[in-house]
Formats: sequence, C-alpha cells, structure tokens
Amino acid sequence: MLAETPIIGSMIMIFLKKMNRGAENTVIPEAPMFVPEFPPQESEPDVVCLEEDGKPEERVELALQCLPDNNAGSIWITDPAAPFRYWKIRDYAYAYRSKLTAPSQATENFISAIEESNNQNPLAPLLISYDPDEVRRQAAASTQRFEEGSELSILDGIFIAVKDDIDCYPYPSKGGRTWFHEIHEVKKDAVCISRLRNCGAVLVGKTNMHELGLGITGNNTNFGTTRNPHAPDRYTGGSSSGSAAIVSSGLCSAALGTDGGGSVRIPSSLCGVVGLKTTYGRTDMKGLIFHYGTVAIVGPITATVEDAILMYAAILGSSPAERISLKPGLPCLPNLSSSESWCSLGSLCFGKYTEWFNDVSSTEISEKCEDVLNQLSEKHGCKTIEIVIPELHEMHNAHIVSIGSEVLSQLNPYVEDGKSARLTNDTRINLALFRSFTASDYVVAQCLRQRLMYYHMEIFKKVDVIVTPTTVMTAPIISPTALTVGETNMPITENLMRFVLAGNLLGFPAISVPVGYDKQ
Amino acid sequence: MLAETPIIGSMIMIFLKKMNRGAENTVIPEAPMFVPEFPPQESEPDVVCLEEDGKPEERVELALQCLPDNNAGSIWITDPAAPFRYWKIRDYAYAYRSKLTAPSQATENFISAIEESNNQNPLAPLLISYDPDEVRRQAAASTQRFEEGSELSILDGIFIAVKDDIDCYPYPSKGGRTWFHEIHEVKKDAVCISRLRNCGAVLVGKTNMHELGLGITGNNTNFGTTRNPHAPDRYTGGSSSGSAAIVSSGLCSAALGTDGGGSVRIPSSLCGVVGLKTTYGRTDMKGLIFHYGTVAIVGPITATVEDAILMYAAILGSSPAERISLKPGLPCLPNLSSSESWCSLGSLCFGKYTEWFNDVSSTEISEKCEDVLNQLSEKHGCKTIEIVIPELHEMHNAHIVSIGSEVLSQLNPYVEDGKSARLTNDTRINLALFRSFTASDYVVAQCLRQRLMYYHMEIFKKVDVIVTPTTVMTAPIISPTALTVGETNMPITENLMRFVLAGNLLGFPAISVPVGYDKQ
Repeated sequence: MLAETPIIGSMIMIFLKKMNRGAENTVIPEAPMFVPEFPPQESEPDVVCLEEDGKPEERVELALQCLPDNNAGSIWITDPAAPFRYWKIRDYAYAYRSKLTAPSQATENFISAIEESNNQNPLAPLLISYDPDEVRRQAAASTQRFEEGSELSILDGIFIAVKDDIDCYPYPSKGGRTWFHEIHEVKKDAVCISRLRNCGAVLVGKTNMHELGLGITGNNTNFGTTRNPHAPDRYTGGSSSGSAAIVSSGLCSAALGTDGGGSVRIPSSLCGVVGLKTTYGRTDMKGLIFHYGTVAIVGPITATVEDAILMYAAILGSSPAERISLKPGLPCLPNLSSSESWCSLGSLCFGKYTEWFNDVSSTEISEKCEDVLNQLSEKHGCKTIEIVIPELHEMHNAHIVSIGSEVLSQLNPYVEDGKSARLTNDTRINLALFRSFTASDYVVAQCLRQRLMYYHMEIFKKVDVIVTPTTVMTAPIISPTALTVGETNMPITENLMRFVLAGNLLGFPAISVPVGYDKQ
Repeated sequence: MLAETPIIGSMIMIFLKKMNRGAENTVIPEAPMFVPEFPPQESEPDVVCLEEDGKPEERVELALQCLPDNNAGSIWITDPAAPFRYWKIRDYAYAYRSKLTAPSQATENFISAIEESNNQNPLAPLLISYDPDEVRRQAAASTQRFEEGSELSILDGIFIAVKDDIDCYPYPSKGGRTWFHEIHEVKKDAVCISRLRNCGAVLVGKTNMHELGLGITGNNTNFGTTRNPHAPDRYTGGSSSGSAAIVSSGLCSAALGTDGGGSVRIPSSLCGVVGLKTTYGRTDMKGLIFHYGTVAIVGPITATVEDAILMYAAILGSSPAERISLKPGLPCLPNLSSSESWCSLGSLCFGKYTEWFNDVSSTEISEKCEDVLNQLSEKHGCKTIEIVIPELHEMHNAHIVSIGSEVLSQLNPYVEDGKSARLTNDTRINLALFRSFTASDYVVAQCLRQRLMYYHMEIFKKVDVIVTPTTVMTAPIISPTALTVGETNMPITENLMRFVLAGNLLGFPAISVPVGYDKQ
C-alpha cells in the first residue's frame, strides 16, 4: 500500500529505480529499436522450411519427417527395473495407431491422476480451470478419428495443457487471478490454440501460473502454489508454473507457456523439462491476456526436444500485422533425419561467457553444463569459444522497462484508482514500479535494445549459439509463509532471470534443455 | 518554474494532461505500431523510380527529366510592370549556364542582402550562423566548375539555407539556442547535407528556428524572432522559421527544414512557399540534433513544387538501420514531362473533410482551397469526395506523447537537475509536460497510431490524396512582449497544427502549396 501512495510511493519507487539505475542521464548514440529485429540471416544448411500460411497439421507432418527415428514401441516393455521414462508424443501416437490404447482410455488415467493431485492439502493445483467432461469429449472425438483411420496429425489425441493466460474455449482466462475473467471474456480460442485443435490435440485445461505472469517463482496465493514434481517443497519456477509441472510430472507430453522474461525457460529448467522460447513474432499473440508487447512469445514446454519441434511446427505463424512490420523470413527446422544434418552439427561453434558459468550458486550446475559442451566436442567435434557479453545491467533495465510498460498499458484500464487492491502484494509492488517508468525511460530502453542487438550480432559473427546455464540456482525452497501471504524476493528473481534476458529483449530463439537433475 | 517544481508542477501537469485527456484508461484493442508503416502499395502509373543507394547528383538528373519544360530565360525580361517572381533552381541554372551571371557574382548580391537584413532593430535574423567567406569559397568552387564545364548537377551553385538543427560543417548546430553547440559538437555534415554538397549546392548558413524545434510560431528570444517577409509584424510560423522566410524573401531557391509536427509545412504555408514533409524514414536523420524519433523528417522548403522535387531527389535515402526495419520500397517521382502523366492527373480522387474546411478562422482560406479543387476538377477532371477522419483528438494526444518523449529522451542528459533554466520558458513548459508522460502513455499512444493508421488506410482505399488547408489561420501577429519574453499560446499552437498531424504520426508524405496570399 505504501508503494501505491502518491508521495511516499513515489519516493520508494525513485529509490528502487536508482538502485536499478537506468540510462536516462547517459547519452546513448543509438536510435531506438522498438521491436527486436535482426538483419536477414543467411539460411543454414540442411534445414526444411515451413509455410507460415500453411495448415498446422501439414507443418507438423513436415516436422515429423525431420525427426530421427525413435523406438516408440519400447515404452511398452514393462521392465520393473527400468527407470522412469516420459511418454513422448510419438510414444502416444504409436500406442494409438497400434491400438494398444486409445485417447479415451488414456483420458481416464489422466483424469484420475489430476483428481488425486487436486486433493492435496494445502492446495497445489496443476490445472486451475478444468472440466473432465470437456476432456472426455475431445478424447472421444479423437478416438473416433483413430477408429475411422482419419487422424489429423501426430498430435491427434495428445494431451496438451494450456497456460491460463492463453484463451482456450470454453475455459475462462484468469491469468492465475480469481477475478480476471470478469474483465477478459473468452469467446473463442487463441490463434495458437486453434492451430493445436486443427492437429487433433486434446486440450486438457488451464494451468496454474504466477499471477498475471508478473513473477518468476510460480508462487500463487489465489489458487495455491504448484509444487515442483521432483521436490514438492520447492518452487516450480514461473510464470508458466503449472505448464512446466504438468509435463514434468508425466501427465502431459506438452504444454503451452508464455515467455516475456524467462517464463517458459525458467520453470522448464527448474522442473527438468524442455522449454522453447520462440523467436519474437513467430507466434501470434491474438487471444492472450497480454496480446501485444515487444518481448513475450508463446512457446511449448515438453519432455524432449523432439516434442518441442513438433509443437513449434504446430503453433508457429506470425500475426498479419507483424508480417507487415517484421517481414519475417520463412521458419525452418533442422533435418535431423538426414545424416548430413548430424554431420554439420560438428561445424557448430558455441559461445561461452565464462563469468556466467562461474556465477552459479552451485558448481554442480556449471559442471553439468561443461559436461554437455565436452560431450558435444568429443562426439561431434563442436567448438566452444570464449565470449564476453557487455552491458548486462543495462539489458536488465531495458527489459524491465519494456515489459513493465507494455503490460501496464494493457492492465491500466482495470487496475487504476484503487482497483489494484484486488491483486497480490507481489503484483502490486511490480505495478507500482512499472508506473514509475517515464515515457523517456521507455524510449531510452529501446535505444539500449539497439545497442545490445549490435553487441550480440557482433558475437553471432563468431559463434552460432550462445550457451549458458538457464538459471543461477536450482529450484528454491518454498517458505511456509510464502504459501499464504505470497513472496517478493528480489535476489531469487534476479538469480532466476539473469541469463535469459537476451532472448526476450533481443527476440532471439532460446531453448532450455535439462542436462542432469539434482534434488538439492 | 512552477511547472518544474516536484509537487505543484506535477499537479499542473496532471491538470494539463487531463485537459488533453489521453487514452490511458480506455481499452484499445490494437497492438502498438511503434514506427509508422503502411502495407506495401501498388506502384502508380507513369512514375520514375530512384535508387536510394545511387549518387544524389544522378537522382537529381533523373528528377530533372521528370519536370515539364520551363521558360527559364523569361526571368531576364525586365519589364518594370511584371510582378515579383521567385528565381527557381532552373532560373539560376539557366543563368549560370548561359554565362548571364556566375555563382560568385550572385553571392555578392546575396551577402549584401543578408547584411542589410542583419541590421534590423530589433534583431530578426534569417541566418544565425553565417560566414560570408565560407559562402564565397563554395561559390568560387562552383564558378570554377562552370568555367570548366564540369558542373555537378542542376543544383550546382544554387543557394541553399539549412535549418540550425541540421549539422552543416563548419557551422555549429545550436538548435536556435545560444549554448546548444556546447553539448552538440559538429565534426562533419549531416547525411542530407553531404548529399547536397555532392550536387554542388552553395550552403549559405544556418537558419533561425523556434528553440529546439519545440514550438510552431518561430518566436525566438535568443537570437530575435524572424519576421514574415510578406508582413513583418507577423510570425513566419515554425519551427523552420528562418528556412521558410529566406525562401519566401527570394534570397534562396531552397532551404532545408525538419518537420515533426508541421515544422516545414506550417512556416511554408504562412510565408507563401512550398514545404514538403517527406515520408517517414525516406530521409536519413544522421547528423541532426534529434537524430531519431518516429515522427520527424528532413524536408525541403522551396518557391515551387518543381524545386521541391529536385531537392527531394537530392536528399532522399533511408538510414542503413531503417532499411532493415522499414524495408522501404523504391522512392519514385511523377513523370511530369510526359503527357500521359498529366492525363492521369484526371484520374485522381481527392478526399475532403468538410468539417476542416469550415473550421478555418477566415472563409477566405477555405474559399481559396475550394478554388483549387474546382480548378483541378474543371481543367483535369479530378474528383473530390467527402471523407470523415475519426479520433482526431486522440491523434493529437498520440502525437504529442510520441514526439515529446522521443525529444526528451535525447535532451534529458543535458537538461536535468536545474539545467533547464538555460532554456526559454516556452521550452521549459513543454519539457515539463513531456516529463509527465509515463511509459504506459507512450505505449498506448503507439496503439492509437495503429488504430489511426487503420482508419487512414481505409480512407486511402477510396481517395488518392487528402486535401486540407495547411493551417486554420494565416500568420499570427507578433505581440510586442513576445519579442522580449517569448510566448506560450496554446490556441495559436492548436490552430496551426490541427490539420498536419497525420503526416507525422502516420508517416505519410505531405506537401503544403501556396494557393493565394492575403496580407490579413
């Protein structure tokens, strides 16, 4: 409340802003770059291009042909000594096509697992809007398609969960808040959801999330805080907390999240699954709670990279407005079914900012990341070189000013004049900070974006990929009070977000891949 | 000073903002459009395309071939009864090529006229940085080229004046302010200036302007207020006041101005000359005091449309960054030398918003504009249809928030913490208003830009050109106190800017053409 009062609040925010001292008094020679744009790039070898305007199910079919063979049947070898394995999209597809099971049959298992999870005390739901009959209805339609041999795509009958800020009819979109659906009516599916429906996916409900996506732990005092499936005393990370947890728990092969500051990658990382932050503008934001902005995207969370590729192929396609303004090149996928593609893997050069590897809270994190680089070098001949990424503090500021202002402009009509009392304290503090940003701060942040893009494009002249740990730390422990009164923990936020921001501010594609799991 | 104090100032600005009530509490369904962009347009018939990357002198040559024949020699028929006529670029070119005069000879006339004008009391300078020897040096080089038959283009030896916010070496760029050169060092020409030099132009000095371009009357208490050549008791209009006046007085065939809110078109209109606001992004802003923004451009002020075409051909060419982000199509010119082009004039359809024609301060203004439309209809068969332009109040707000924030972000390092006391009151009040804009206001303004672009593109499906009076009123009278203490006159500002804003906010090309002169 103090932060929201006119005079003392202003003083607090001036203090907070000074701590995060922006660039408003620095002369920045660059002109603003209002949306992340990089010059057209040379096309890579051995890629398959997809049509943005094509049918999603045709894109998914093309993507499927790009994947290496898998041994889908092996999941049925029920050796009790075998370790836990995630059911991938192609495992389900194999089972449906081999009549080993059917979507309707699998649905009943799914529903009883969800009901069991919903009976936890204190509440820690994976899904906050969910109707078993709606799931059964979709599964029955899919089952019928399989019986008729008219399945729509490899995604037909696959369980997919949807973050609560993405419209998925007939569910409300509450954005993790109990009353948000009063001001955001859902009349139809978001664009990305209708693409998944065209592929036959079974959309199982709306996943829990950090309120309005404005936090990075997944703490939610409105519905209960979703727990990390690998360690229930720990956070999932956020804001796509339920989406990461439902995939990590093995209940869904895929979920959709949104990522404006790491909200797909961070929970994916903390929950040990794969999170893809798509290139800015590749996905259409129509039908999301925050339907515009210059940093956020829709991205898949899956158990494997292969499944992320299939999901990406289904949901991609820029909005009509962005096709005019961004004029994006054709999206493409690596052809992993060809041996040339695996050969060319060896030509990749990774950029490693060692300061980041040294900067993690446990050496186990950096060692696991080093391990991967060593394996890629030994098995495929990939190179790793040292890079330095300058002005990271400025990147942090430019990011928070951009996303904060863009979110606030969409929330303002609903939360002005005392109405923000209906939000959690964490959200209210964030909004008070966002309100302190001036228009000139916003423009300066865009000048920094231009400048940081230049630095990164210089780096990308030397390397193909920048590799980092996704986060500084593993999943933080949930304090008991945080479950009831919420939590605003700046150091944790900073630790979780430190390495992911370039993807958002500069629009780069970024993927978080599990490289090992440590309960501690 | 009140406006700049923390608490009372905030209250004043909240009041001013409420008067100009923005859209911050309105739900705007559109996503932001950060820079004005319209979908690719079908190319028009009978146009000649120019190369952005080509040599300026080659573009000028192509432009010259697009012009209809003129009778340049007739200017030398010295009939004492003949009315005053402006010397056009081709009149000078004819005289130089026919050895009737030479640039050096013409320069001496120019210099004595400037010196006479500089001796006025109170001061009302056309040029505020000017060195006769520098002009003589350029003219001598041009004269030599003519003697050697190696003239560079039709612009060789043509006197061109440069607004004081455009870098033109070796002159300082003061932006109409006595100390601005201390923080803005000029080491070389702006891009547009170096293009003019390549064409052989004689750059005669830096023209007076409204301080930092932040006003629309041309009032300037730092150097003295330039007077309207047609009525010395009246303003020139601004902010390119000296540029319009030096062309209007007949001393230069052309001048450069900048236009972010009518600053080329308004003074051109009030001084009875031609002002071209180029399409957003067509001109490179490198080397200007405000080197970025989403509304301002460099544009020529000339005595005739033909000369505006020649100047445009010389200075055009997007910046490298904007070629990536805007991906502009090729610039083109109407081929007025061909009879087809004049025939196709008849196919033009003008859009007239009658409310604007009725809204002027004197019926003489609207009658003169109606006259032009009637003549175009009678002589060429052009059509005029009624249009309605919605949400003009919102356009005004979106424009002021955009330009104000973009200017402030570039000025802030120099005018924070009390340093703004070195500016005029008019500028200080403007900056205090700009400081009150929040980042969210800025984003909402960009959503409005998207919305207004949609409305205008719908209008442009029905019409080729929107016709309006340039301003609501003719040149305002300068009050005696305004000469010494300056002036902040909101109604005058509003009257002068009302019709020109779409050109800036939406980036459209716009030209102001004199259609008759009335001393009152």
